[in-house]
Amino acid sequence: MGEKGLLLVISGPSGTGKGTVVRALQRANSSLRLSISATTRLPRDGEVDGVDYYFMERDIFKKMIEEGQLLEWAKVYGNYYGTPSHFVRDALERGNDIILEIDIQGALQVKEKLPEAVLVFIAPPSKTELQTRLLGRKSDSREEIEKRLKCMTGEMKLAGGYDYIVVNDSINRALDNIHAIIMAEKCRTWRQQSIIEQLSQPGS
Amino acid sequence: MGEKGLLLVISGPSGTGKGTVVRALQRANSSLRLSISATTRLPRDGEVDGVDYYFMERDIFKKMIEEGQLLEWAKVYGNYYGTPSHFVRDALERGNDIILEIDIQGALQVKEKLPEAVLVFIAPPSKTELQTRLLGRKSDSREEIEKRLKCMTGEMKLAGGYDYIVVNDSINRALDNIHAIIMAEKCRTWRQQSIIEQLSQPGS
Repeated sequence: MGEKGLLLVISGPSGTGKGTVVRALQRANSSLRLSISATTRLPRDGEVDGVDYYFMERDIFKKMIEEGQLLEWAKVYGNYYGTPSHFVRDALERGNDIILEIDIQGALQVKEKLPEAVLVFIAPPSKTELQTRLLGRKSDSREEIEKRLKCMTGEMKLAGGYDYIVVNDSINRALDNIHAIIMAEKCRTWRQQSIIEQLSQPGS
Repeated sequence: MGEKGLLLVISGPSGTGKGTVVRALQRANSSLRLSISATTRLPRDGEVDGVDYYFMERDIFKKMIEEGQLLEWAKVYGNYYGTPSHFVRDALERGNDIILEIDIQGALQVKEKLPEAVLVFIAPPSKTELQTRLLGRKSDSREEIEKRLKCMTGEMKLAGGYDYIVVNDSINRALDNIHAIIMAEKCRTWRQQSIIEQLSQPGS
């Protein structure tokens, strides 16, 4: 009898390196699968349906919202993005572990629908360090960076709804912590019902 | 500013190897300290006060019970055994991690007084395996072994009050799991309040 998989939801402010963390987790752990989002935006060059996204018609997406078929969704610049429940639930039932890299509002929506989801918030070691990293990327203007830092102030207030905070001061330490979280969560008592039942039966 | 230590409470049925696990944890992790119990029984040859036990007069022990100064206590064959709160609380405040190896009733008493205690239940992989191990120790009679197995049936029903169940099918795997639990627990959101506060302050 297979055990149910684990749903690991990873979020964090822009510039905390969560993309790097997620890619490294996938490389290190072949049983972890990245959840694929659905979107109503058009595919960009090279993007493949079912790999990068599930590309969907707007009315189909809206019907999924109405029918509660999405674990979370948001409208960004006129396009819809979301996580179809059944892909995630099926994979978990099959015993696969799933990573979902989504924003904080989305993560909290997921926790409401699937309380067993494990929410990990990747935090920068400090504001100054985050600022340095954002400046180093050279992809954002000063103004944009200021906006991101201000945004983080609000995001951190929502971090209290997460199960774990992993400070990304070194990528290896952050990965060690997340691997430990995955291992520990698999030992949680509610996941060990079959061994409890087996051992609490009278007689051998 | 130092972080508060972690209180790891380890229990498990007789024969699951929890003693071996606790000794190996201490060897591998120099910051983990074993909590010392208080008892009213007389010291045996070679036992040192403050190392093996805190040996106490009966009326002092009873006063500690009355004044709620024990995290847990029990009377076994006419002697009292218990865990003085202030040793544990002081060590945790100083940032030391503490292991407490106690029975299930004691562990559940601790959880009530210190909800942040992390309760780990060491379980055998199966009843047959536990029976084989108990027979292999050659220290117990058949009757004693039967009693222990029966006892486990009841103990497993209380295991639901634990945070984690670690199946000791291999000592190394059990240790890896407990190390992961310690690491993960240190990332718990409630333990990361200082970084949340620091990052959620407006301005840099």
